[in-house]
Amino acid sequence: MAGTGIFTEILDGEVYKYYSDGEWRTSSSGKSVAIVNPATRKTQYKVQACTQEEVNKVMEMAKSAQKSWAKTPLWKRAELLHKAAAILKDNKAPIAESLVKEIAKPAKDSVTEISNVCLGVRILGEGKFLLSDSFPGNERTKYCLTSKIPLGVVLAIPPFNYPVNLAVSKIAPALIAGNSLVLKPPTQGAVSCLHMVHCFHLAGFPKGLISCITGKGSEIGDFLTMHPAVNCISFTGGDTGISISKKAGMIPLQMELGGKDACIVLEDADLDLVASNIIKGGFSYSGQRCTAVKVVLVMESVADELVEKVKAKVAKLTVGPPEENCDITAVVSESSANFIEGLVMDAKEKGATFCQEYKREGNLIWPLLLDNVRPDMRIAWEEPFGPVLPVLRISSVEEGINHCNASNFGLQGCVFTKDINKAMLISDAMETGTVQINSAPARGPDHFPFQGLKDSGIGSQGVTNSINLMTKVKTTVINLPTPSYSMG
Amino acid sequence: MAGTGIFTEILDGEVYKYYSDGEWRTSSSGKSVAIVNPATRKTQYKVQACTQEEVNKVMEMAKSAQKSWAKTPLWKRAELLHKAAAILKDNKAPIAESLVKEIAKPAKDSVTEISNVCLGVRILGEGKFLLSDSFPGNERTKYCLTSKIPLGVVLAIPPFNYPVNLAVSKIAPALIAGNSLVLKPPTQGAVSCLHMVHCFHLAGFPKGLISCITGKGSEIGDFLTMHPAVNCISFTGGDTGISISKKAGMIPLQMELGGKDACIVLEDADLDLVASNIIKGGFSYSGQRCTAVKVVLVMESVADELVEKVKAKVAKLTVGPPEENCDITAVVSESSANFIEGLVMDAKEKGATFCQEYKREGNLIWPLLLDNVRPDMRIAWEEPFGPVLPVLRISSVEEGINHCNASNFGLQGCVFTKDINKAMLISDAMETGTVQINSAPARGPDHFPFQGLKDSGIGSQGVTNSINLMTKVKTTVINLPTPSYSMG
Amino acid sequence: MAGTGIFTEILDGEVYKYYSDGEWRTSSSGKSVAIVNPATRKTQYKVQACTQEEVNKVMEMAKSAQKSWAKTPLWKRAELLHKAAAILKDNKAPIAESLVKEIAKPAKDSVTEISNVCLGVRILGEGKFLLSDSFPGNERTKYCLTSKIPLGVVLAIPPFNYPVNLAVSKIAPALIAGNSLVLKPPTQGAVSCLHMVHCFHLAGFPKGLISCITGKGSEIGDFLTMHPAVNCISFTGGDTGISISKKAGMIPLQMELGGKDACIVLEDADLDLVASNIIKGGFSYSGQRCTAVKVVLVMESVADELVEKVKAKVAKLTVGPPEENCDITAVVSESSANFIEGLVMDAKEKGATFCQEYKREGNLIWPLLLDNVRPDMRIAWEEPFGPVLPVLRISSVEEGINHCNASNFGLQGCVFTKDINKAMLISDAMETGTVQINSAPARGPDHFPFQGLKDSGIGSQGVTNSINLMTKVKTTVINLPTPSYSMG
Amino acid sequence: MAGTGIFTEILDGEVYKYYSDGEWRTSSSGKSVAIVNPATRKTQYKVQACTQEEVNKVMEMAKSAQKSWAKTPLWKRAELLHKAAAILKDNKAPIAESLVKEIAKPAKDSVTEISNVCLGVRILGEGKFLLSDSFPGNERTKYCLTSKIPLGVVLAIPPFNYPVNLAVSKIAPALIAGNSLVLKPPTQGAVSCLHMVHCFHLAGFPKGLISCITGKGSEIGDFLTMHPAVNCISFTGGDTGISISKKAGMIPLQMELGGKDACIVLEDADLDLVASNIIKGGFSYSGQRCTAVKVVLVMESVADELVEKVKAKVAKLTVGPPEENCDITAVVSESSANFIEGLVMDAKEKGATFCQEYKREGNLIWPLLLDNVRPDMRIAWEEPFGPVLPVLRISSVEEGINHCNASNFGLQGCVFTKDINKAMLISDAMETGTVQINSAPARGPDHFPFQGLKDSGIGSQGVTNSINLMTKVKTTVINLPTPSYSMG
Repeated sequence: MAGTGIFTEILDGEVYKYYSDGEWRTSSSGKSVAIVNPATRKTQYKVQACTQEEVNKVMEMAKSAQKSWAKTPLWKRAELLHKAAAILKDNKAPIAESLVKEIAKPAKDSVTEISNVCLGVRILGEGKFLLSDSFPGNERTKYCLTSKIPLGVVLAIPPFNYPVNLAVSKIAPALIAGNSLVLKPPTQGAVSCLHMVHCFHLAGFPKGLISCITGKGSEIGDFLTMHPAVNCISFTGGDTGISISKKAGMIPLQMELGGKDACIVLEDADLDLVASNIIKGGFSYSGQRCTAVKVVLVMESVADELVEKVKAKVAKLTVGPPEENCDITAVVSESSANFIEGLVMDAKEKGATFCQEYKREGNLIWPLLLDNVRPDMRIAWEEPFGPVLPVLRISSVEEGINHCNASNFGLQGCVFTKDINKAMLISDAMETGTVQINSAPARGPDHFPFQGLKDSGIGSQGVTNSINLMTKVKTTVINLPTPSYSMG
Repeated sequence: MAGTGIFTEILDGEVYKYYSDGEWRTSSSGKSVAIVNPATRKTQYKVQACTQEEVNKVMEMAKSAQKSWAKTPLWKRAELLHKAAAILKDNKAPIAESLVKEIAKPAKDSVTEISNVCLGVRILGEGKFLLSDSFPGNERTKYCLTSKIPLGVVLAIPPFNYPVNLAVSKIAPALIAGNSLVLKPPTQGAVSCLHMVHCFHLAGFPKGLISCITGKGSEIGDFLTMHPAVNCISFTGGDTGISISKKAGMIPLQMELGGKDACIVLEDADLDLVASNIIKGGFSYSGQRCTAVKVVLVMESVADELVEKVKAKVAKLTVGPPEENCDITAVVSESSANFIEGLVMDAKEKGATFCQEYKREGNLIWPLLLDNVRPDMRIAWEEPFGPVLPVLRISSVEEGINHCNASNFGLQGCVFTKDINKAMLISDAMETGTVQINSAPARGPDHFPFQGLKDSGIGSQGVTNSINLMTKVKTTVINLPTPSYSMG
Repeated sequence: MAGTGIFTEILDGEVYKYYSDGEWRTSSSGKSVAIVNPATRKTQYKVQACTQEEVNKVMEMAKSAQKSWAKTPLWKRAELLHKAAAILKDNKAPIAESLVKEIAKPAKDSVTEISNVCLGVRILGEGKFLLSDSFPGNERTKYCLTSKIPLGVVLAIPPFNYPVNLAVSKIAPALIAGNSLVLKPPTQGAVSCLHMVHCFHLAGFPKGLISCITGKGSEIGDFLTMHPAVNCISFTGGDTGISISKKAGMIPLQMELGGKDACIVLEDADLDLVASNIIKGGFSYSGQRCTAVKVVLVMESVADELVEKVKAKVAKLTVGPPEENCDITAVVSESSANFIEGLVMDAKEKGATFCQEYKREGNLIWPLLLDNVRPDMRIAWEEPFGPVLPVLRISSVEEGINHCNASNFGLQGCVFTKDINKAMLISDAMETGTVQINSAPARGPDHFPFQGLKDSGIGSQGVTNSINLMTKVKTTVINLPTPSYSMG
Repeated sequence: MAGTGIFTEILDGEVYKYYSDGEWRTSSSGKSVAIVNPATRKTQYKVQACTQEEVNKVMEMAKSAQKSWAKTPLWKRAELLHKAAAILKDNKAPIAESLVKEIAKPAKDSVTEISNVCLGVRILGEGKFLLSDSFPGNERTKYCLTSKIPLGVVLAIPPFNYPVNLAVSKIAPALIAGNSLVLKPPTQGAVSCLHMVHCFHLAGFPKGLISCITGKGSEIGDFLTMHPAVNCISFTGGDTGISISKKAGMIPLQMELGGKDACIVLEDADLDLVASNIIKGGFSYSGQRCTAVKVVLVMESVADELVEKVKAKVAKLTVGPPEENCDITAVVSESSANFIEGLVMDAKEKGATFCQEYKREGNLIWPLLLDNVRPDMRIAWEEPFGPVLPVLRISSVEEGINHCNASNFGLQGCVFTKDINKAMLISDAMETGTVQINSAPARGPDHFPFQGLKDSGIGSQGVTNSINLMTKVKTTVINLPTPSYSMG
């Protein structure tokens, strides 16, 4: 149970504490922030409303803890991360429970593992050794050793839909690389994050190296992202990211901000495979995924058959409370549900075909497939982030590619065809960070690079890329008095 | 002669044209910007004062030219760059002449070569091929192909001190990577840049791929750096860079902004080697180099001897007009000369020892070594960007390292010692992008990474790093219906 | 004209000289080896029959020249190679002429360029910098610098079919890596090689660094390959390679020995594409290519159609003298022609279908497609190395894969199908060094790895792999008295 | 206790079984090989004398097991290796005990861990993705995917001095790379190896994937190394390696064969550091290490002082039975002891200075430092592989380097100096696989490359290099009908 057992100490009465300088603390603000359960629309949890002064304190600690951490052997850093991973694995239940209550995530979706720590060890323990004489006019008198050094303090801001997994995928590379880490969880998802952070606490990381701050965006949002002590921001979320990037100073940014992932379906595609990928890609976690299929672009000649197949599968989706592992659960907030409804109503007015009746109870929206969507409808371009999926019928492959490329987003896309030439040519032509051939868009496995083009983000993720982003290069050049060549 | 021969067409009367859509043009503004010769303090050249509309036009062309360029075979891109390099090599004289007149650079310092184009071909022609089954729980059903794709339009802003070399080091990686390039030269240095751009023009790059815009910062400065069409900014210069980075959107930045490179001298150092490196490192191009030695931190016990040796060498430096290849020439502007004088006067008041008499005529400042500088003097921390070098005497290595690390800058540093252990330990301890052991700080050779920490910049340079920064990763994932392992 | 102009000095009367210690020399043996023109079956050229003593001299020079060469800056090595490449490019005509006369190669096939020298510079100028603390229990006290050092003397033995191109592809990586090079050309092809070597001579490489020895295999064959001064053998040819590898000492071997490249054709393949690839892949240079298509494995249902298409194209192949650029010319020797005839007769006896009449005049064999070949015929398994191509009809993909994998060879293979899943799965299943999807087997482009499995060879080629094979790793470990971590 | 507990099943009466097809078996030969305890000179253990037929069986199993293993996901291979590592860690005692009895290794030296398995996962899960258009004249129509594929059956032959550690360092990379493994332990060390193999058995590897064959060299030695089923030999040992390499077929060889590691001591060296490294480097495990310091080359001016310091430390070495953890124990065999004595007597005759009295009891030889050794003494060049260390006094650095480079061996070397320039220049000049600056030669940490030049071996070790050596490259080329460039 959340807040019990080994997690008792993270709770102060009914308000969850924040984590600073290696201890769980109550904010001096005396205030808290309420977390509303999306399904019940009632306050489920409360977290501390931290002050700017408390942020300052956290940053100060993070800066000093980082300096010693950067001098800790790589294998020891890895050992601590492995320990945290083990504790996390043993304590999935209370975290899963908070995910159900905070973000209405079906209980079956469990918590990530911290992966590829040893990959990090490899990347960080190896630099380049460069010789001057490969450059015209130079003798071999300069030996250049390159290392990857940590940036300092990394600010990690995960999104509500994967608050724990995407926090961990920021924390692990930041720490293995020798940085300290300040976590600002989303309000919805904060309690799950606090539990996760406690697992790191129990693993015995040095004081101040990891902190977790909760509070109101209006009070500490900009204060955090513009804080002079922050040396890197890793953010996953919505278009707030763009405004953060305009205010942030001269620091590396890793941002993943959303998408309008297209699914292009050619005439020779395996339509059963397409249909099950559309269901998985479009309706998992009620469509609240960055890499959800957000628009289907299907060749007219196979559109009827495909829509029928998808319709049949939509009919089988269960709808209801996350506690019962329903496929479709309440979306995260009332404003989100209202936004989705707005898109649906616009499509209705403009003549889209409703494959199911539109139905909503509170934040719970029944899965909806909209056929015959046209480019003049908002839902052809905007992200519903809910269980509503538009289908556009196209008369040529080019039309599909053009629709995909006309989007401001460029996260992922997918193309279904058996033809190897078409698959490769269309994949090259789609202007997105990733193109999946014959599968729905998806982040992972963790060692695959993950990145968005255009408004979908900056900086690539995946273990190797995250570590590269969270480090800088430092070079030491040994200058010799005479040329010297290594002899064998 | 500048503006003659093959360069005739870049000049319109007495005003140099700007370069847009593959042609040399006169601005519709009807205005020009004057370039003052630092030595004579008289107007030497005039360049177009371009309008925002002309910037818009350039950006539009850059966007569309880039799309076809990205589909040009790598070897063809390389071939064009090699051609431009050859033309540039054959036309050094007029460029060198403009450098003398615009920035008072001694004529002997010639123009860079475009190097390592073939290195770029290698980097760009090779991605990774990743397999899913290295991640726990996965079979080998996903084949991930990673490519480096261009960002789009790169805005290059070189500094006045190396306007041509540092422009070329931005242009070459941008173009080989498939980007288009908009160049905004510094006012002082603009004419040299225009000549260089003409060499690219003559090489036959596609229209619109390269542009060069001149004008007033107040009119087009922010307009350029905040332009929505810009996908990457590569800037070298002063602290303007920090404000650019705060206004720029969610785009990769490569910035190199200045430094206060320390030269730590231990008791066992070869003092003749140190002295000649201090002269080369501190007084080349009158100290107007990012990587100039900007503070000497010498162990008390050898300080007298070192200062004597440096003094003797300073006495031999020639001072005068750049046309005569003098070592020390006028600094770039009157305001710069005034700023330097301010630092010198502050040091005088606070009791620094003047190894030479302070002497200034117009923008020409005689080389000056200041001994017994103490941390309370401004020159211990600020960048003179002129031929004035402070010496602090230290009583321990730690004192030297601490002074170096207390700076806001972190570009390069150097340490002189024969001792291998001290050399490595001190190099590790210095918080700068590069540490040179037994040589003055310096950028290059071009394949060595070059980067500043803290306020000295973001993003590493050097061919490999520049190309990585000017590209994004794109992945294509082939999803197979059954696991498949490559058999041998 | 061969042996004239700048090549005059390589000829002594009617016998070509050998190249040793930077000079063209006549062997003390007083004997020569005759080179028979395959088309005329008359002696065309003569080369020196070198002695073992002359081999010893060459090796001695190679050893000592290598030591200084290894201390030559990389860019200088590259510069010399570029110079040799330019001379070679300017003197293609006499080399092409010798190829026509020695090996009956159609005149249109011109000489290779020396490519990717700058790639070599990159690979060799960059090692790794490894830190001890990534290994459990270690602090960061050991800094390991890895370099690639040359092996010493590389013995290069190219085959008759590409004597110049495959010699150059061995020489360039050997030299750029700092090795010296002893070339033993095939008898047929020797004169072309001697011309090529003269281009290197004219480029000004140090004396003794490159040598070229001609002679009788019985006299100097084993003597060369077992010579204690040889540090690496790069061999392309037939199964002599296997016996060389059993006699050679503890040295790296790069061997490419032949293949029986299968072409698997599925039912959905583009049969026009297949047919033109079979013609190109099976009959170029009269089938005398390692990577020639040597057996077609076609699905029964499309076999008739494919065979018809290929037959139609075979009918258009021109047959005759190489001087007239005929597609099909005499095979290299009478024994080769006899061997091919043996395979044809065996197939005839066992009931293969002859798509054309079998026709031979001297060493000239008319192109022949054999349909309905079965696994009991020799030609299903053996390499004709001539213009004779067997077609096996298969009833399943597995049958095709099994036939391919049952071969002792494993050079390349190809599969023709439009289906992306089948293409990838079959490619993985084929046990060959390379599988081409929808194209005939081929070596190149030069930066693609090229290698054979099983009896087809050892060691991968391609610029990167050749350089790696022709170098060894050397490490320098700096041991520090206390742990030290690079700080930023 | 050896052969008890979980190890009971590996023993048949008093003879240890061999391991084939996943089971412990008794040889049909009915014969056994005796293992003599070096300290007691009595038979300690017996192992099976396997027959050639049993070798054939093992090879047959290895070939077929490998095919399925190569289709096992990388993470599963890693998981099994981690499991074996854990079992091995929990069962060190009986292995340590056998090491004491078989090879007189002091009990304190414990068993290795299987490291860096995850590094292997990384290397193997990542290939290159190459594009055709980086090569002149090519469009981007060919996509080349490179993978690392297993070789097949790896034959591992570790040496007597580290029978378990060096077996494991061959087994782990072989298996993670998808190969099967046949282990032929040294007779002395066989029982330790059998225990280790049982840990792999208990981990649950597939039947036939790992085998362990014991027997007489005369019966199965050449039979194993020349066996046609063997696709790679990884051998550590003496000069048998050279003869193996001359008989082995066209397969990759990894050989590490011995050395005569020089320790060059300059005048400015820290002599206490040198002395303790000489003791560690020269006398650990009684000098029976490939990377032992085998000759000290010290500058005359500091020789007296160094010899005194080393003498004082030699005096403190304990001599006696391995069970009591003595520093110096019996050398491995009587013939070895006799050989060492021969070198000592030769040095005596030729006038070397004995710093201690020569003393021997059975195979136990007391530690001996020989000063004033000259190049005409055998011990200046030959490997004693015992606790006897020669000191040559040199009058220049060049003399030291020349002595080092005149050796047939080229494993490691070390140089002691504080001077950074001398350290780097001498390190470059020494023709050995590794040069340690300011530390004794040593293999490891495991991720550092480890290799010998000249007669010291072929192929580099270290995790990355071993995996590269135990795999081949395979490429798949996707040929597209039209050029295609990945767009972003």
